[in-house]
Amino acid sequence: MKYPNGIRKLNHPTNQNNFSYANRGMRLEDDINDTNKYYLAINKAVIHKKPTPIQIVKVHYPKRSAAVITEGYFQEKATTDYNGIYKGKYIDFEAKETKNKTSFPLANIHEHQIEHMRAVLHHGGICFIIIRFTIHDETYLLTADQLITFWDEMKRGGKKSIPYETIKRVGHEIPFTYKARIDYLQIVDELFF
Amino acid sequence: MKYPNGIRKLNHPTNQNNFSYANRGMRLEDDINDTNKYYLAINKAVIHKKPTPIQIVKVHYPKRSAAVITEGYFQEKATTDYNGIYKGKYIDFEAKETKNKTSFPLANIHEHQIEHMRAVLHHGGICFIIIRFTIHDETYLLTADQLITFWDEMKRGGKKSIPYETIKRVGHEIPFTYKARIDYLQIVDELFF
Repeated sequence: MKYPNGIRKLNHPTNQNNFSYANRGMRLEDDINDTNKYYLAINKAVIHKKPTPIQIVKVHYPKRSAAVITEGYFQEKATTDYNGIYKGKYIDFEAKETKNKTSFPLANIHEHQIEHMRAVLHHGGICFIIIRFTIHDETYLLTADQLITFWDEMKRGGKKSIPYETIKRVGHEIPFTYKARIDYLQIVDELFF
Repeated sequence: MKYPNGIRKLNHPTNQNNFSYANRGMRLEDDINDTNKYYLAINKAVIHKKPTPIQIVKVHYPKRSAAVITEGYFQEKATTDYNGIYKGKYIDFEAKETKNKTSFPLANIHEHQIEHMRAVLHHGGICFIIIRFTIHDETYLLTADQLITFWDEMKRGGKKSIPYETIKRVGHEIPFTYKARIDYLQIVDELFF
């Protein structure tokens, strides 16, 4: 099982430095969270990251102070990382970064996340994935339709990853702006409105 | 700080029995989760509970087995408990049960949850609260508009709780059906479509 972003660094604070030259010291999740805060502040959209699901096994209740979870485990996500509302529409997406230079491995995605995306599309939601290639310092939006196409190809015996060059060609590069660090709603506007 | 539903019972398994005579042995959260699973299975809506936010402080990584969180704390929710998509619309709600017989105390709701509801309404989403009176074994839907009205009244020096009789009169009782334990989309259909 892969641990969710941001957990491991708590034990290994120096890990963060490994990222800094590749993506301006900000991880994709931080960039998206900052962007969502900005969208919320200017009343543009209400989009939040869902908390990491944790199975809580033991809790200690000290007197006069906060409850402490003393045994818990990471659970697999049932859905995607982010959802919310934009221009009256339901919006839902996953975000992944890869250190891979030449392709995005589909092993980064779980089957039930694809099923979730299919269900969102069925009900008329806007759904996509944001993929960052940390080495290239480039971030792309692929629509859920596109991602599901690659996924289904893989299931039929096709490639287990999407080549970087393909994503560069068929995906939509997300601009990095000062205020919205990763201004994905610009792309959403182009594609869905 | 109030602990999220379902946590304390892990340490006190007998607690669950206290609920059983009042609400058929099912807690509101379980009822809603079951209902959401049913809606998903019949392709009616995609609505999930957001995981409880946990601040993770220490994680232990044993060899050959899953990572264990050995120190974590409950964080306050920034938004509401549930969201998703129904008939192409963004849907967002909070759910609360109270053992109070005569009123629903507004202390059950946080200021930032009200702010979140205002933002959702601003962007055209469907937003409400589900309130269960366990003693009466009755469950009501109040629209976010209604809840915010009571909230704003309180802020102007009005009542700190909504009387049960008021909720009975202005709220919408949610039917308990066999397949959808708490069939709130029936009410959503009446009110919003």
